[in-house]
Amino acid sequence: MKKHNYSAGPCILPQEVFKEASQAILDYNNSGLSILEISHRSKDFVDVMEEARSLSLELLGLENKGYKALFLQGGASMQFLMVAYNLLEKKAAYLNSGTWASKAIKEAKLFGEVQVVGSSEDKNFSYIPKKYDVPGDVDYFHCTSNNTIFGTQMKKFPKTAVPVVCDMSSDIFSRQLDFSKFDLIYAGAQKNMGPAGTTLVIIKEDILGEVSRKIPSMMDYKVHIGKDSMFNTPAVYAVYVSLLTMRWLKEQGGIKAIEEQNEKKAQLLYSEIDINPLFKGFTAKEDRSIMNATFNLTKDSLKDEFDKMWKDAGINGLNGHRSVGGYRASMYNALPLESVQILVDVMSDLERKA
Amino acid sequence: MKKHNYSAGPCILPQEVFKEASQAILDYNNSGLSILEISHRSKDFVDVMEEARSLSLELLGLENKGYKALFLQGGASMQFLMVAYNLLEKKAAYLNSGTWASKAIKEAKLFGEVQVVGSSEDKNFSYIPKKYDVPGDVDYFHCTSNNTIFGTQMKKFPKTAVPVVCDMSSDIFSRQLDFSKFDLIYAGAQKNMGPAGTTLVIIKEDILGEVSRKIPSMMDYKVHIGKDSMFNTPAVYAVYVSLLTMRWLKEQGGIKAIEEQNEKKAQLLYSEIDINPLFKGFTAKEDRSIMNATFNLTKDSLKDEFDKMWKDAGINGLNGHRSVGGYRASMYNALPLESVQILVDVMSDLERKA
Repeated sequence: MKKHNYSAGPCILPQEVFKEASQAILDYNNSGLSILEISHRSKDFVDVMEEARSLSLELLGLENKGYKALFLQGGASMQFLMVAYNLLEKKAAYLNSGTWASKAIKEAKLFGEVQVVGSSEDKNFSYIPKKYDVPGDVDYFHCTSNNTIFGTQMKKFPKTAVPVVCDMSSDIFSRQLDFSKFDLIYAGAQKNMGPAGTTLVIIKEDILGEVSRKIPSMMDYKVHIGKDSMFNTPAVYAVYVSLLTMRWLKEQGGIKAIEEQNEKKAQLLYSEIDINPLFKGFTAKEDRSIMNATFNLTKDSLKDEFDKMWKDAGINGLNGHRSVGGYRASMYNALPLESVQILVDVMSDLERKA
Repeated sequence: MKKHNYSAGPCILPQEVFKEASQAILDYNNSGLSILEISHRSKDFVDVMEEARSLSLELLGLENKGYKALFLQGGASMQFLMVAYNLLEKKAAYLNSGTWASKAIKEAKLFGEVQVVGSSEDKNFSYIPKKYDVPGDVDYFHCTSNNTIFGTQMKKFPKTAVPVVCDMSSDIFSRQLDFSKFDLIYAGAQKNMGPAGTTLVIIKEDILGEVSRKIPSMMDYKVHIGKDSMFNTPAVYAVYVSLLTMRWLKEQGGIKAIEEQNEKKAQLLYSEIDINPLFKGFTAKEDRSIMNATFNLTKDSLKDEFDKMWKDAGINGLNGHRSVGGYRASMYNALPLESVQILVDVMSDLERKA
């Protein structure tokens, strides 16, 4: 039975990617060797890393604009730390829009003063803070473009002269933005880019070198840039599968084309949430994420029936995060419209039955 | 044509592991989902992580002895930093036996005083330093059990009352040692344990909590232990393939059985190096690694012919590291004795022809 995978991450990737990724484990590029057993210094893998780095910049429209792409380890959680290590000399401004933003703030405080310029913690992060100013004297401004757990998404970003750092883990490559407005973008791969185990970091090189502390090699963006993202053995397979996924995205027509698909999927589901009296969205409407839709049943008594229905329909990973409860439908790039239609049909069926 | 993979890492893994690892990309445990798309919080993956953690302790004979196993990201290079972050309050003793030990020393110096108690840098790390004392007033002693690049291996470890930290990246699970003599063992997976992308860290819990500095969450062993190695999304696939490889090792009879095989392979190759006048070992004989054998041609003029011969025989990855030159045969657990015989045959053929 076909599965409809709404997992929040690690999450669905294109079926074509799984096929090619599986074959490469048995024999990579007709070399007679598995991709898992080749040297990361071999031409085969250096080619993978270089194509992944350049394709990430190409997809974001950031070629030849002073940016470097890195594939590092440790997830966004490691970036919370690396960003502060490399950029926080005295004070930084952070927007607190959810759990991950809060964690980024916690780590940054070990390195300097953190000014939280806006927060939606008062309403369990169900909206994006809007009326705030970024001071001109901070080292950088940090925000989270999409809040996976709560299902909110920043539609606008503040205009500021200070460097803008953005955690785009859960919506990178899903929508068009002027990415050149950002100075540092990071994203754990395990949503729209690939499997868990690697993290894309895109840095405008000229923001580096401003802090006075000594930075350990593995924490130092300049060290990784100087070694073309191969300072030490990278997460070979995770980078390879990320490359396959980015190639797939390019074949689909890039971010412009996938954004249209993502908008259709989100519209289909949010329409059902809004018209079906048995469901209620969790977030402020204007801040709804096109990646993660969070919603609840209006009658708790229907929970068992609804849960059985969507599981019977082959749907996977629809339970909400413990911080929010209810349901969360993560509709990343590789989730087909058909899967969303299945979920919407189940929701309608519930209304007819109830 | 069958390949004989002598790659120094990432390196050969068992063929059975490749098969199962490839299948899991298409459908994991008959779930209808790829292992790359399941949640790391799902029972399926939590089971993988827990089995991997307990099996690593079981293979090393460290169950119920106060140790915890973690699968982290960033490789041994990240451990150079984490060890110092967590354990270095004032002064630590390091043994400098090669490139990786030197890098560990460099990172530790950012956190406190480092006393290099012994070094073989004077002879390009071709031997293991032996006559040295570990002071009783240091926070810990750090050593590297096997030097991948130079092909040396520590056969004895100093007796000391201070905690012993050991980088076992390139010989973990390859030979029997009294592992309970070590307080912290770390190893990048990409030699005997699995693919690149995860790092095994085995810690005796009672050595933690002694430093006064504030430790960022991702750097803090206690944080990772408290979250059962799932503080953030782990490198799902690298941990899974490591588990498959450890299961394979257990089926072979564990470390005792594989050590016998490794000894046979090393003896076969080193015998040829010693009796064949065209070859010369790089290291002191008593310090020879059973994992990585480094050697040179005695006549440079034979290089082209020898290179053609071993390549024609299906051998891969035999070139020495740039720091040493010549050749390096890495004979990790999964390399069959048959592959070593092929190399030895080529070396004998060269002698007959020359």
